Amino acid sequence: MRFVYLALALFFSFFSAGSVASDISITELSHSLNSSWIVLAGVLVFFMQAGFALVESGMSRAKNAVNVIMKNYMDVCVCSLIFWALGYGLMFGTNTSGWFGTSHFLPGELSDWDWTFLFFQMMFAATTTTIASGAMAERVHFHAYLIGACVIAGFIYPVFGSWAWGSNYAGEGWLKAMGFIDFAGSTVVHSMGGWIALAAVIILGPRLGRFSPTGEARTIPGHNLTMVALGGFILWFGWFGFNAGSTLAANTSLGKIALNTHLAACSGALGYMLISKLCRQSILLTGTVNGSLGGLVGITAGCASMEPIFAMFTGLIAGLISFLGPKLLTSFKIDDVVDAISVHGFCGAWGTLAAGLFFAGDMFDLGRISVQLIGIGAALVWGFGIAFCTYFLINLLIGMRASSLHEQRGLDFTEHAEIGYPEFQDTRAINQEALNAQR
Amino acid sequence: MRFVYLALALFFSFFSAGSVASDISITELSHSLNSSWIVLAGVLVFFMQAGFALVESGMSRAKNAVNVIMKNYMDVCVCSLIFWALGYGLMFGTNTSGWFGTSHFLPGELSDWDWTFLFFQMMFAATTTTIASGAMAERVHFHAYLIGACVIAGFIYPVFGSWAWGSNYAGEGWLKAMGFIDFAGSTVVHSMGGWIALAAVIILGPRLGRFSPTGEARTIPGHNLTMVALGGFILWFGWFGFNAGSTLAANTSLGKIALNTHLAACSGALGYMLISKLCRQSILLTGTVNGSLGGLVGITAGCASMEPIFAMFTGLIAGLISFLGPKLLTSFKIDDVVDAISVHGFCGAWGTLAAGLFFAGDMFDLGRISVQLIGIGAALVWGFGIAFCTYFLINLLIGMRASSLHEQRGLDFTEHAEIGYPEFQDTRAINQEALNAQR
Amino acid sequence: MRFVYLALALFFSFFSAGSVASDISITELSHSLNSSWIVLAGVLVFFMQAGFALVESGMSRAKNAVNVIMKNYMDVCVCSLIFWALGYGLMFGTNTSGWFGTSHFLPGELSDWDWTFLFFQMMFAATTTTIASGAMAERVHFHAYLIGACVIAGFIYPVFGSWAWGSNYAGEGWLKAMGFIDFAGSTVVHSMGGWIALAAVIILGPRLGRFSPTGEARTIPGHNLTMVALGGFILWFGWFGFNAGSTLAANTSLGKIALNTHLAACSGALGYMLISKLCRQSILLTGTVNGSLGGLVGITAGCASMEPIFAMFTGLIAGLISFLGPKLLTSFKIDDVVDAISVHGFCGAWGTLAAGLFFAGDMFDLGRISVQLIGIGAALVWGFGIAFCTYFLINLLIGMRASSLHEQRGLDFTEHAEIGYPEFQDTRAINQEALNAQR
Repeated sequence: MRFVYLALALFFSFFSAGSVASDISITELSHSLNSSWIVLAGVLVFFMQAGFALVESGMSRAKNAVNVIMKNYMDVCVCSLIFWALGYGLMFGTNTSGWFGTSHFLPGELSDWDWTFLFFQMMFAATTTTIASGAMAERVHFHAYLIGACVIAGFIYPVFGSWAWGSNYAGEGWLKAMGFIDFAGSTVVHSMGGWIALAAVIILGPRLGRFSPTGEARTIPGHNLTMVALGGFILWFGWFGFNAGSTLAANTSLGKIALNTHLAACSGALGYMLISKLCRQSILLTGTVNGSLGGLVGITAGCASMEPIFAMFTGLIAGLISFLGPKLLTSFKIDDVVDAISVHGFCGAWGTLAAGLFFAGDMFDLGRISVQLIGIGAALVWGFGIAFCTYFLINLLIGMRASSLHEQRGLDFTEHAEIGYPEFQDTRAINQEALNAQR
Repeated sequence: MRFVYLALALFFSFFSAGSVASDISITELSHSLNSSWIVLAGVLVFFMQAGFALVESGMSRAKNAVNVIMKNYMDVCVCSLIFWALGYGLMFGTNTSGWFGTSHFLPGELSDWDWTFLFFQMMFAATTTTIASGAMAERVHFHAYLIGACVIAGFIYPVFGSWAWGSNYAGEGWLKAMGFIDFAGSTVVHSMGGWIALAAVIILGPRLGRFSPTGEARTIPGHNLTMVALGGFILWFGWFGFNAGSTLAANTSLGKIALNTHLAACSGALGYMLISKLCRQSILLTGTVNGSLGGLVGITAGCASMEPIFAMFTGLIAGLISFLGPKLLTSFKIDDVVDAISVHGFCGAWGTLAAGLFFAGDMFDLGRISVQLIGIGAALVWGFGIAFCTYFLINLLIGMRASSLHEQRGLDFTEHAEIGYPEFQDTRAINQEALNAQR
Repeated sequence: MRFVYLALALFFSFFSAGSVASDISITELSHSLNSSWIVLAGVLVFFMQAGFALVESGMSRAKNAVNVIMKNYMDVCVCSLIFWALGYGLMFGTNTSGWFGTSHFLPGELSDWDWTFLFFQMMFAATTTTIASGAMAERVHFHAYLIGACVIAGFIYPVFGSWAWGSNYAGEGWLKAMGFIDFAGSTVVHSMGGWIALAAVIILGPRLGRFSPTGEARTIPGHNLTMVALGGFILWFGWFGFNAGSTLAANTSLGKIALNTHLAACSGALGYMLISKLCRQSILLTGTVNGSLGGLVGITAGCASMEPIFAMFTGLIAGLISFLGPKLLTSFKIDDVVDAISVHGFCGAWGTLAAGLFFAGDMFDLGRISVQLIGIGAALVWGFGIAFCTYFLINLLIGMRASSLHEQRGLDFTEHAEIGYPEFQDTRAINQEALNAQR
């Protein structure tokens, strides 16, 4: 009889053994789910590059359409490679000092998950770079721009990133150690891009004709607002990957993060519309798109730690900032073609502060707010400072700014010998000649 | 020896205990999978807004390109906020009467899953609103349009939605209780949008020059057919989220739903092409895109309950309807810029009927068909009726239609002081002036 | 006491029974995850059609914009239906001979997973067809093109596909049996499309004016480079679904596959830029986009079996090929409007070879390389051979090439009676007349 019990125990334990095997499967399945989620989120973030290209190109003149897009297309390429080689190690490598990572440069052997993580983070690095490109449009040399892009993706961005998000291996960035909240990068990605843009346009100076000899601002309208709107929609679309993907795992909090992201974008556009009405100004498409983008930038820091009602409020204020910021910068004779400094820099700073103010369950905590302000300030000092030095050096060594003649003709012709719409632009003949010379 | 057995039993049960823990994990993992699936599906549905914007703008004249897109861009923003405040409660709140929900207005505290669900449903509300916008293009006041959009997303759509899909909490809509089949919204979303569009264009009247003084129809070609095609591709792309996401859970039926969706779209375009050939007419790009969209609208109700062969048939017939519908409406002097009434209203009604006719396993059931017809009729009466009253009132109070002078100049200039392609349109000088006045 | 042990054993086995149930759930959950992953990947591949449409249309002249897009829009529709009816059975049906499948034509009853699989594979068939369309742009009859597309999706593509990837049921293709590596289709999809394109353009001959009477090549610039870049971004975006989805299951290798895909695209553009610099030529937007696409084509075969560093190298070489290929073809007076033969044909062949050369863990294995070369050769012989016969016959029976008058006027007007940008093209009056005749 005892053998019967033993047999029974063993028999049932056989089923149990099955469940042990299934435990492994659950873990595997969970890893598979996370991998597919992060890859899809990374793919959405990648697609934001198309959004930036359209917004920036659409807000520029037709004679620079190719050049603007080429800056975006090539910076993804160059920055991704640089981030693989240098940035990943600086940002996520072992970070014992708290100031930068020191391992995993030129990674050749990583775990499956780390490759996935690298893929996702690579897209963030490329985003930061691209943010700066729009502000500089229509007057910067293609090669000078690309060199700057390499410095951003290989040094400026990852070093700051290591402070707030590092490390993936050992050690911790100093800002992260202080409890700095920047879930998906209002500061790490967006403000950083904005402050770099500010440095760049100060070095570059305004476009010819942007300010009259007496100092009055003149609007230079973009050549294709349909493209601007499409770009806005694509950015908004990709932003769901940006914010909800920053969970770095598929979990049930995704829905609220996506909802917060969406509500902030809606409120941003609404905020722009309301203040335009209040100021008795027309509701511009460019302003509306920037209002929604401002809302998206604003919610990026706090999308995982805010209640929806505060996400809306954060977006609404960001919409106002996207309206007021450009007026402030214009008064300083700063020419930012796509208002990247306001939308990404100012709204990013606001969003980082808002993440501290409206932290769910513990709002208006002074300690938290102080840490957020330290993070905002650190980004401004580091991003603007290093970028200013970088662009100053590039300008000194090879020159940042295209010649006046080239600027007047348009950089498409002078830098690429290819124009955007040869059948619809007056320079058709010239272009034909240039293209023929190519082959 | 007995202790040995006990020990063995306990030992093996230890592994079992592990499996109990893993049971919880499976549930969690399943929730995580569902959350990421629904968020991604909702993101795809969001992107349909870009598709609508391009189709509608591309089919309009360049002088109204900004205005058309602005209607779409702002209605997402406004409707999402209104749907959060009002629509969600009306549609999915506790619905004891069967006629509308009465809880969960301005929701501040929801479960993770309900936030996810709200996010997904918000996108559907915005889709319904946007469907109506295309029909009204080129002549409606921006503000009057936005007020109408709020009524749709905050009242017309969610009340009908509560009949067919409510509730998420307690009670059941009367149509749902009857067994009405509308899986992803051929009626709830698309027909509803179509009937609202019909009411709107009756109030608005046709564009200047659309019909000659003797009553003959004149084609007003859209300004950018490349954009129309891109918009069609984007809508098709997003529709996979619309239909397959309506499972509200990641399961193995997704593939068949996506396949049905795709085959119906293909057949819709083919149906349009065949009837065009039969009628010895040219195969237009605009017609082809609308044929495929008609197929997509048609399969939306039955995509989860039809065999693929019937999905193709449903799409094919929808393609014919998308060809014939506009001819019918034109004969009544109804001016629908993008043929939204035919593509969404008529094809949606057909699709809802088809879902009853071709219900897999129990085709041509008279009871089911009757319920489908009741649902189709209810949508027409409610959607057209309330929308007509709404637009009538808006027209009375603030005026729906732009003045003839403004319509001739184009609404971009008169309503937004910004034009779409300033370097390629004749009004460049005027625009420059207007824009300078902005800053 | 014995009963106590029995009771204990049974009691604990109760928990185990729970785990047995959960075993089933894990399997189900795994199927659900795979289904949602493959549907999303298939949806991304579908979206590549929009990318092809924009790249091909943007690289053509405005007078053919509608025609080029219509070819792409309709070939998805027709090819998907044909692939359901014929192609799936030929490619994945029971394949005892190793040369083609013989079951599952016009499938009406499939398992959930097989519907999902069919959905995914349908998108691949449509991709192959569309690749060929770009090369033939601006001079091919719409109907002749569509007939050719049916032959590709219903015969040429699935038969070769059965060699390398068949079968889904019983039997194995002869190339697959040899160990041929083509993970996501550098050869099966891309080279195949390229060789078909080569056959087509030989039959069609170059566009009027592409070569001067003395045989000198003349560049015919595309009408909208913004669209070309957007198309490039969309293709790149969709390619993540193409490559990472070819796992046919969500697993942890996805991240590395996506990363390899991305790095190869980046390196492809960089390779193009470097060789352009070396040759002292301008860096064209069209060339950059094609460089990145070349990199993507190149990595498609080996994305799952290469280390990232070799993915970069593969992409870099593909970028050079995308630069040199067109020069070679032009010297033979071959007019490929979008350089599809180089980007898809040549880079696909290179990528297939690279997958053999850089197979992780066993690089430069002669046996493997030989098999890869056999596969490359078989694709060239089969694809070019059958396509040549097909287009020769179509040309003989109904004529492939539009008349010179029609080619000069543009195929939009002559084949569709609809032009792309009526307000911006000179033929507005003619178009209006044609459109009015439609209704």
